[in-house]
Amino acid sequence: MQPFGDRLHDAVERAGNPCVVGLDPHLALLPDEFAVARDPAASRADRARAMGDFLCGVVEAAAGKVPAVKPQSAFFEVFGADGVAEFERVVAASKDAGLLVIGDVKRGDIGSTAAAYAQAFLRGIEGQDPRTLCDSITVNPYLGSDSVAPIIAECEATGGGMYVLVRTSNPSSAEFQALVTTGLEGAPALLADRVAGAVDHWGRDLVGESGWSSVGAVVGATHPEELARLRRLMPRTPLLLPGYGAQGAGAADIVGGFQGGLHGALVNSSRGILFAGQQAPEKHWKDAAAGAMDAMAAELRAALL
Amino acid sequence: MQPFGDRLHDAVERAGNPCVVGLDPHLALLPDEFAVARDPAASRADRARAMGDFLCGVVEAAAGKVPAVKPQSAFFEVFGADGVAEFERVVAASKDAGLLVIGDVKRGDIGSTAAAYAQAFLRGIEGQDPRTLCDSITVNPYLGSDSVAPIIAECEATGGGMYVLVRTSNPSSAEFQALVTTGLEGAPALLADRVAGAVDHWGRDLVGESGWSSVGAVVGATHPEELARLRRLMPRTPLLLPGYGAQGAGAADIVGGFQGGLHGALVNSSRGILFAGQQAPEKHWKDAAAGAMDAMAAELRAALL
Repeated sequence: MQPFGDRLHDAVERAGNPCVVGLDPHLALLPDEFAVARDPAASRADRARAMGDFLCGVVEAAAGKVPAVKPQSAFFEVFGADGVAEFERVVAASKDAGLLVIGDVKRGDIGSTAAAYAQAFLRGIEGQDPRTLCDSITVNPYLGSDSVAPIIAECEATGGGMYVLVRTSNPSSAEFQALVTTGLEGAPALLADRVAGAVDHWGRDLVGESGWSSVGAVVGATHPEELARLRRLMPRTPLLLPGYGAQGAGAADIVGGFQGGLHGALVNSSRGILFAGQQAPEKHWKDAAAGAMDAMAAELRAALL
Repeated sequence: MQPFGDRLHDAVERAGNPCVVGLDPHLALLPDEFAVARDPAASRADRARAMGDFLCGVVEAAAGKVPAVKPQSAFFEVFGADGVAEFERVVAASKDAGLLVIGDVKRGDIGSTAAAYAQAFLRGIEGQDPRTLCDSITVNPYLGSDSVAPIIAECEATGGGMYVLVRTSNPSSAEFQALVTTGLEGAPALLADRVAGAVDHWGRDLVGESGWSSVGAVVGATHPEELARLRRLMPRTPLLLPGYGAQGAGAADIVGGFQGGLHGALVNSSRGILFAGQQAPEKHWKDAAAGAMDAMAAELRAALL
């Protein structure tokens, strides 16, 4: 399998935009057609399946329009094993539709456990349908190098990718991530900048022919002032920028994350696309979602090209 | 439901020791009786079920001996939806056996997503069997206060608990956790100490009649020099100390985490108990595991009382 960094580059090239559709199915916002997902009288399996049906519809709308989707594991896990079965179905549908899948799982644990997570999402077990595996996952860096090493090794072996949380998009993210730190080496630096330095280092051996590594970083698009600096600290690292749309960031805020046209970052929008139909009740929800993807792609192309 | 901090206090009192059995089923180490779990020719459901059968046996051995078990989600997730079904079965078996369940899931995400994780593990959906829910989960603090707030709210509403990663037991944990940080307030402090201060603050409103909060902290028993200091920074916080046994910490290393006899911390051992049979091939694996629990309990009681 080609390395993730290269597959990502090609997928952005093909789609002509750097949009990723976040599959965050807030049950309260699902179109009425899928109301069984929030029906307390329905079985857990039926509820999960209705949620999965909605997301498979979104994936159909996304096919050919955007390079990637990002299913958010938490919303599936609400339905336990039934939800995880739907996660696998939505991942497979996305791959069948030619979309890259970034599993937003934010896992992080000590070595042998991290290896199990890498297997769960990137390698699978013997005989597993490869369509149910993610192309890339999000990872939490708090435990340090030996907690990400098994995931990096799995990326190298399988052509998978990972995005390490560096600076997140939520209001409290500065609480720890923006603390000034002093270490044994170098000048004082924000914690997020130190994590960025580590990410750059971790990803060096996984830079592919496109010039991009398979080890990426999550940087909230809600911090444009930091984005350009973090871009410089991680010159070969593909960025994943959440926060666009519902969380407040616009096209002008994300430009600093890019490097050469459409490349260098993916911009995520979840609610603004999935639930676009709520703002346009005259349209079918799927047409509204497709229209929101087209609008976002056009906005980003205008800002970047 | 009584608050987790109080339920924990009572469970330790009843068991007469502060041991938690980590349910980390490394497939390569399972007794031969459960070899189907590692058989590449077996179906995923059969493999997951064999792993679950082993763990249900461990739970039987643990009933009445220890206050709690800690299933490690990653090893279940290796088997996808089939593994998560087994996670639910093992949790239910543990509750039926009178054991508290700490779901070692190390989740952490922005607000609305963190709320979904809290629902997944602590509240469940309408009609869900409460035996399949955890009493407490482990949580990653990297995203800051607003990422833990929904989980704290869920603990308050349901009597659940959480353990926030403060200082982990793995070799690289110092890389970020032991950086010296300077912030707007107070003297320079290690990142882990600042997280500890936040945990103490987060847990203040959840201190129960026992004097212990439902918001706990994970502190590796492999750092005895830091343990006493972190104990002082979080006087009402129940600690969870991994690293005992296979990771190298002994009974003398954990004393600083306690406060008044057996209370103040749980000490986790995983491999040393689950796979004790490998060191004692003349015994049945379950007798060996039970013997290892008795030995650990005696060691800790001798060090603490």
